[in-house]
Amino acid sequence: MSFSPLVERLMETLRVLPGVGPKTAQRMAMHLLERDRDGGRRLAEVLDTALEQVGHCQRCRTLTEETVCRLCESPRRDDGVLCVVESPADQLAIEEAGGFTGRYFVLHGHLSPLDGIGPEDIGLALLEERIAEGQVQELILATNPTVEGEATAHYIAAQVAGQGVTLSRLAYGVPMGGELEYVDGGTLSRAFNGRLPFSALR
Amino acid sequence: MSFSPLVERLMETLRVLPGVGPKTAQRMAMHLLERDRDGGRRLAEVLDTALEQVGHCQRCRTLTEETVCRLCESPRRDDGVLCVVESPADQLAIEEAGGFTGRYFVLHGHLSPLDGIGPEDIGLALLEERIAEGQVQELILATNPTVEGEATAHYIAAQVAGQGVTLSRLAYGVPMGGELEYVDGGTLSRAFNGRLPFSALR
Ligand SMILES: [Zn+2]
Ligand SMILES: [Zn+2]
Repeated sequence: MSFSPLVERLMETLRVLPGVGPKTAQRMAMHLLERDRDGGRRLAEVLDTALEQVGHCQRCRTLTEETVCRLCESPRRDDGVLCVVESPADQLAIEEAGGFTGRYFVLHGHLSPLDGIGPEDIGLALLEERIAEGQVQELILATNPTVEGEATAHYIAAQVAGQGVTLSRLAYGVPMGGELEYVDGGTLSRAFNGRLPFSALR
Repeated sequence: MSFSPLVERLMETLRVLPGVGPKTAQRMAMHLLERDRDGGRRLAEVLDTALEQVGHCQRCRTLTEETVCRLCESPRRDDGVLCVVESPADQLAIEEAGGFTGRYFVLHGHLSPLDGIGPEDIGLALLEERIAEGQVQELILATNPTVEGEATAHYIAAQVAGQGVTLSRLAYGVPMGGELEYVDGGTLSRAFNGRLPFSALR
């Protein structure tokens, strides 16, 4: 025995959500059907609308339902510094950390030749146009500290070379508040190599 | 800063799902928008269809998109034994445990006067009609072993009294494979009171 075909189909389909296995999908389906049909209808509608309307900002490629996103439209951000990130979630994390006043460019991924993801898939032509406008003085390559993120940063660095733009990369180091014994070796050796004179730290 | 209004709305709405907090909702929204738009569209559509079409079986009240569910329609089940459960999930658990060949009746909850949930809300009029048909010889009151489940079982028992129907309740006891020291006291004392002669056990 199982639930009715349509209920079973709902449980299967809920598994498109990350981290949702069969048991969780069953609990979700039962909750929506038994206790929150209005919430379920709202979810179906908002999901449909969002997938229909949310695209990429024409200027920075972040997720937005507008042609150009609010951050790109804001007159209070510095056009001279552009921060390249892999995802909108990375962009949000940097914004929430606070302190950065420049603009962003979102790749939606990283170069991955084996998966057929090349420069055009991560918007590098649009990034080149942006640099050619001449306002960007510093390009912060804030791709992930992974093999793919590093390779993508190097590719962009090579692409931009010779155009008078300063390139930078987020500092590697031990995470604040962490204990050295739990920091992985690669990070630790990077932190050693990047050590600063004590007087340079406040 | 936050995501665009529509993306924020999607994240909020995903929280209608049980167990989904702000971080999980963000991860789900990003996954659907960045990596699985087809899956997201399918989810919106199936959810909408299920909420539109899935109702209660006219005979047993379980969740189904059909007028009468497959189990009620099956000629291979015993009309003489009717098992009353609180939810379709309980029904499924009993079916998956195997061995029961009778039919079901689903309350979709339990009596809860403080929440305004009375006999009509859990389908007791329909249950009475079913008993009045005269085929049911045994009614298994498989409501949850909770205060509300017990109270509901007693209410139904009183309602059915004098109609020649044998009433039964699931046996209480120590769960198989469990260790006595971890079994709660209430269960343990019930298991003691319900002890059987050794020869009765195979
Ligand atoms: Zn933008
Ligand atoms: Zn039925």
